[in-house]
Amino acid sequence: MALTQRSLCQQVIGVARRPDTVRQALTRSIADYVTTDLADGVAGADVIVLATPVRTILRQLAQLAAMPLNSCLLLDLGSTKVEIVAAMEALPPQVQPIGAHPMCGKETAGLAVAEPTLYAGAPWALVPLPRTSPHALALARELAVAVGARPLVVDARRHDRLVAVISHLPYSLAVALMLAAAETGTQDGLVWELAASGFRDTSRLAASDVTMMLDILLTNRAAVADALRQASAHINHLADSLAAGDEPAVQAMLVAAHAQRAPMFRPAQRE
Amino acid sequence: MALTQRSLCQQVIGVARRPDTVRQALTRSIADYVTTDLADGVAGADVIVLATPVRTILRQLAQLAAMPLNSCLLLDLGSTKVEIVAAMEALPPQVQPIGAHPMCGKETAGLAVAEPTLYAGAPWALVPLPRTSPHALALARELAVAVGARPLVVDARRHDRLVAVISHLPYSLAVALMLAAAETGTQDGLVWELAASGFRDTSRLAASDVTMMLDILLTNRAAVADALRQASAHINHLADSLAAGDEPAVQAMLVAAHAQRAPMFRPAQRE
Repeated sequence: MALTQRSLCQQVIGVARRPDTVRQALTRSIADYVTTDLADGVAGADVIVLATPVRTILRQLAQLAAMPLNSCLLLDLGSTKVEIVAAMEALPPQVQPIGAHPMCGKETAGLAVAEPTLYAGAPWALVPLPRTSPHALALARELAVAVGARPLVVDARRHDRLVAVISHLPYSLAVALMLAAAETGTQDGLVWELAASGFRDTSRLAASDVTMMLDILLTNRAAVADALRQASAHINHLADSLAAGDEPAVQAMLVAAHAQRAPMFRPAQRE
Repeated sequence: MALTQRSLCQQVIGVARRPDTVRQALTRSIADYVTTDLADGVAGADVIVLATPVRTILRQLAQLAAMPLNSCLLLDLGSTKVEIVAAMEALPPQVQPIGAHPMCGKETAGLAVAEPTLYAGAPWALVPLPRTSPHALALARELAVAVGARPLVVDARRHDRLVAVISHLPYSLAVALMLAAAETGTQDGLVWELAASGFRDTSRLAASDVTMMLDILLTNRAAVADALRQASAHINHLADSLAAGDEPAVQAMLVAAHAQRAPMFRPAQRE
């Protein structure tokens, strides 16, 4: 949608699983041509973008490896990169693969809520393979910039370790918060009446698409488990300090978190 | 500010600690009269509202108990209620005390960022004491409704247990998230470059005023420690399930959290 609206490509071709999505994409002029057939969609393409859940991307890469492809740039938009970049090694040599991850998810999914402005100002990680040419990397950068994003080149392992903390941990904490609140809600429904903007914001990510998030967590298991244990250690330290009435220990944690967070985002960013 | 702008009182009197705040309140016509002297401010008042951090409220209640007060309604706006309501018992008999808690915090503090519309649509807990008259409770309800809030009557212990889960836990998880991210950030500063809206929202509460939050956590220690351990159990279960590659266990948690959260807030609420 971002490419179509900017007229950046000679032709934008969409591939969707369901005929209903194909019709919707055509009715809303989101693409010039839309098909449910992957081979049909990628035939003759100069740039292929895989924008599906991570484990679907892995299956599509296996399918694409067996297809007669043009010399082309192929990038994915998955949120984890180690397994995807490894699977990209099996692509035929005329394909220039690159892992990509625009950091701009939302908690709703599907074409009905798609926004062409989603990428505006978002960090966009790019993970080139050893086989990726400088020309292909430059084209991927150009594509990210064209839709308003900020490209950042990073290797796959470092990417997955960092997003475990900055993206998969926030999601997981939102899940834990919802499960704890739901336990309390079963005993006393008034808890939901008292939920205000703080709860709403902190729990928002728990409404993210489950298929997408399950694929993300399962393809970044070790790094996410590490990040969860790191957060859990802080939570237990806070619980112990409160139970013991250790005011200086509680205060030290609150001050450190405030010092990091308070200057992080400017008010303009809708806080 | 909400009362002044609606001309709901004959006179609105402000009490502030610092002369600078007094000047600011007068310059911006936030109150009709402003003083740094608590005894001066409350003399002759029909309604007294204590809007300071919880432990300051406790000190002010002790001061007020020794002052010659009119027959009046006295309410506080503190975020925990058990200790405050207990302290209210010592007020002289002509005072009608009531614990109050408007659920509408923000992560900035001080008169410079005060908003008269802060209470619009917010749940506003009211905790009457056994000694509180029906008339005083009705007046407190009227006051909450007048500034746009939704009053909810609840007892102190139940209030503190519920807000531990719905308010103090989200804050504490935001603190734990910031501390975990800061640890990673010390090793690899790129983590901050990758922070997107999901991280921003989940961590927002960590920027809350430390003095205010420290008082809240320390006057609700047992309930907050319980809520933290409850969340920690879910976090550890998720970490263990991921480390073991137990997809059904991970999926069950994500599905349960999604089912609770997805229908909770309407899109109109700026999501």
